[in-house]
Amino acid sequence: MENKIKIGLIGLGTVGTGVYKTLQEFDNVEIVQIAVHNKNKKRNIPNLDENIITDNAYEVVNNPEIQIVAELIGGTEPAFDLIKTAIANGKHVVTANKELLAKHGEELFNFAEEHNKVVLYEAAIAGGIPLIMPIKTILAGNKINKIKAILNGTTNYILTKMDVQQASYNDVLVEAQDLGYAETNPTGDVEGFDAAYKITTLATIAFNKRVKLENVYREGITKIRPQDMKAANEMGYKIKLIASAELNKNGEADVRVHPMLVPKTKTLAHIDYVTNAVTLTGHPVGEVTLSGPGAGEFPTASSVVGDILAIVSELGRTDYLLPMMRCRHSENAKMVDISETENKYYLSITANNSMGVIGKIGKACEDNNISLASIVQKEVKDGSADITVITELCKEKDMQKAIEIFNSDNSLMKVNNLIRVQV
Amino acid sequence: MENKIKIGLIGLGTVGTGVYKTLQEFDNVEIVQIAVHNKNKKRNIPNLDENIITDNAYEVVNNPEIQIVAELIGGTEPAFDLIKTAIANGKHVVTANKELLAKHGEELFNFAEEHNKVVLYEAAIAGGIPLIMPIKTILAGNKINKIKAILNGTTNYILTKMDVQQASYNDVLVEAQDLGYAETNPTGDVEGFDAAYKITTLATIAFNKRVKLENVYREGITKIRPQDMKAANEMGYKIKLIASAELNKNGEADVRVHPMLVPKTKTLAHIDYVTNAVTLTGHPVGEVTLSGPGAGEFPTASSVVGDILAIVSELGRTDYLLPMMRCRHSENAKMVDISETENKYYLSITANNSMGVIGKIGKACEDNNISLASIVQKEVKDGSADITVITELCKEKDMQKAIEIFNSDNSLMKVNNLIRVQV
Repeated sequence: MENKIKIGLIGLGTVGTGVYKTLQEFDNVEIVQIAVHNKNKKRNIPNLDENIITDNAYEVVNNPEIQIVAELIGGTEPAFDLIKTAIANGKHVVTANKELLAKHGEELFNFAEEHNKVVLYEAAIAGGIPLIMPIKTILAGNKINKIKAILNGTTNYILTKMDVQQASYNDVLVEAQDLGYAETNPTGDVEGFDAAYKITTLATIAFNKRVKLENVYREGITKIRPQDMKAANEMGYKIKLIASAELNKNGEADVRVHPMLVPKTKTLAHIDYVTNAVTLTGHPVGEVTLSGPGAGEFPTASSVVGDILAIVSELGRTDYLLPMMRCRHSENAKMVDISETENKYYLSITANNSMGVIGKIGKACEDNNISLASIVQKEVKDGSADITVITELCKEKDMQKAIEIFNSDNSLMKVNNLIRVQV
Repeated sequence: MENKIKIGLIGLGTVGTGVYKTLQEFDNVEIVQIAVHNKNKKRNIPNLDENIITDNAYEVVNNPEIQIVAELIGGTEPAFDLIKTAIANGKHVVTANKELLAKHGEELFNFAEEHNKVVLYEAAIAGGIPLIMPIKTILAGNKINKIKAILNGTTNYILTKMDVQQASYNDVLVEAQDLGYAETNPTGDVEGFDAAYKITTLATIAFNKRVKLENVYREGITKIRPQDMKAANEMGYKIKLIASAELNKNGEADVRVHPMLVPKTKTLAHIDYVTNAVTLTGHPVGEVTLSGPGAGEFPTASSVVGDILAIVSELGRTDYLLPMMRCRHSENAKMVDISETENKYYLSITANNSMGVIGKIGKACEDNNISLASIVQKEVKDGSADITVITELCKEKDMQKAIEIFNSDNSLMKVNNLIRVQV
């Protein structure tokens, strides 16, 4: 018993419960204390020793017996202060806290390194999918320059259902809320905040330079219509909320979260419902896609426990830690504003009266250096027409100028949606 | 210069060249000797120092300066003796040799462990896909009980082309040979030997028990017809050469390579051309799929270099090695013979005269405890009929008995193909 590594958990919700149950299988570790919000809550955990439960999380981070703390409550405070206290008290930390990493990663990792402690966070990005540790170990010979990812299960569920059922965003949202796949206040998921937190940290690791959350462009899925899904399908695409990070030829990072038309030839187009997936492109490896459950009690526990076991394997043997466990980045990534990027676009326009509208669209595009790859006009019964445009690669700022022109002509036409297209 | 880790390469073919080029980017390692088959061969490698080239591979494994040897020639001999000599001389080894691992893994890993040296082999299975190291590290908290994988790019290319072009196996094989995707003697790929080597080692790692190659059932793709592809497609499946390993409820390993009908709802159904993919199922993680390039100069180099860098990060710091680097298995897996397994089947039969054939098929199945999920009969112009059957789960030995009955009635009907169906 005395030789077991002592673990403290902060949080015994979905993930904490999964971690607790999974660690019972390992006889080299022992959970000696668990902090919860409400000590009196009934929990479905057999043989849980109530004496190790506390409602004061500081007891865990100050417990001298504990060597590794797993922080599983989320949010920035009190999580940040608890983790710093744990580190200052000589403990290593495993966390699933994507928001904290995205907002305070730099301070957190510097603090950990100053104390010669590690903070591991495989569970914070893409749940159970092996991602961070592979990037830091077996892919260490690579320069990764592109990431395309589906990192939010709620929005992928909604978009899949909208596609399969030809249903509206609002109808599917209500269904997702009923099933527990979306929260009562769904903003964090559907407006892309959750995916933005995750791509911020993932891009930092992959590019080996610190990416700042405030420079990550973000757009949610609330404006996507079943009509867009249908048009995309007919042209060989699926609409997905894509977290994207690329290094351009000047080495600047272009990091963003927004809906995209993904070609059906890409693996990401076939990642449905709550599944997550990450496509990494680098040299020498080429293109690798890792997919699996992005959330949930057990998948997330897999990553938390993997991190705990990695630290355990280090604890017994050396006075310093594996390079792959470090996460300090002295250099900040130079970041590109979305207005300076080049993209391919899907544009849906309703023409009130089709006379002359195609010509106006063509001229506005031409005047702004936008080439059209395809344009399809379909008559709607009341005399108006639906026009679907796919452009070639063009500048975001040029496209925004063209959109302004279209919007100024709103007696003639209405812009329904502008969605970027994956090349 | 003196502090660089000294590397020796055996083999400077496709993979060796990729490894050589990739390692030039790292200033903590230095390739000090390279063994080749033919010293006079012209090579497209800029700035290659000819003084480090030898045509005697034993010079590399006996070179006292070298700390890590990368064996990249393949085949069992002389590779096996070279690796053992390197280990006996105190060197760690990285290899891409799937055949050697499958045939002599037990002896090799025991030998390495007795000498406190490691043999890493990420590149031997699924090329550039991060697989072995993730299983041993971040997925270490899991019990993996199922693997379904596409591990051979040549056969996946052939099957994809047969599907897309509705072309015959022989026509596509010739095309694949012309493009360099298939060898002049394609047996190792098309009869499933290559995939069997890989699944043998992968199952050993995943199940943590040694799987024996001689107990791995193997069937190739040469009998697959475009008609089978078409029928599968219509029923919602793709035909893939699947390397499969499962632990049954008694903990016995069922490991095999054969064509399967894969439901289009599965990621593997969408892995096309030379891409490889591995779906792992375990607890707590659930189902994770890792996909990417399974071969090629640079993807394979990514894994070889990842292994080399992992050893380098260990060399400087301890007197013993990470548990994840060990590969000794004291326990052999108890293995199930295919005749004892349960499967779902696709069966294609041509009836010379359709009168009574459906009844005979139905009776033979019923007499052998085989339930039918679906049966479709289509008339062919000459009066004969094509019958496609999908069964429910049933025993392999029962199905083989039914097939015997069908074959004994060969004036009435001809069995075109029997292909297992992924459930």
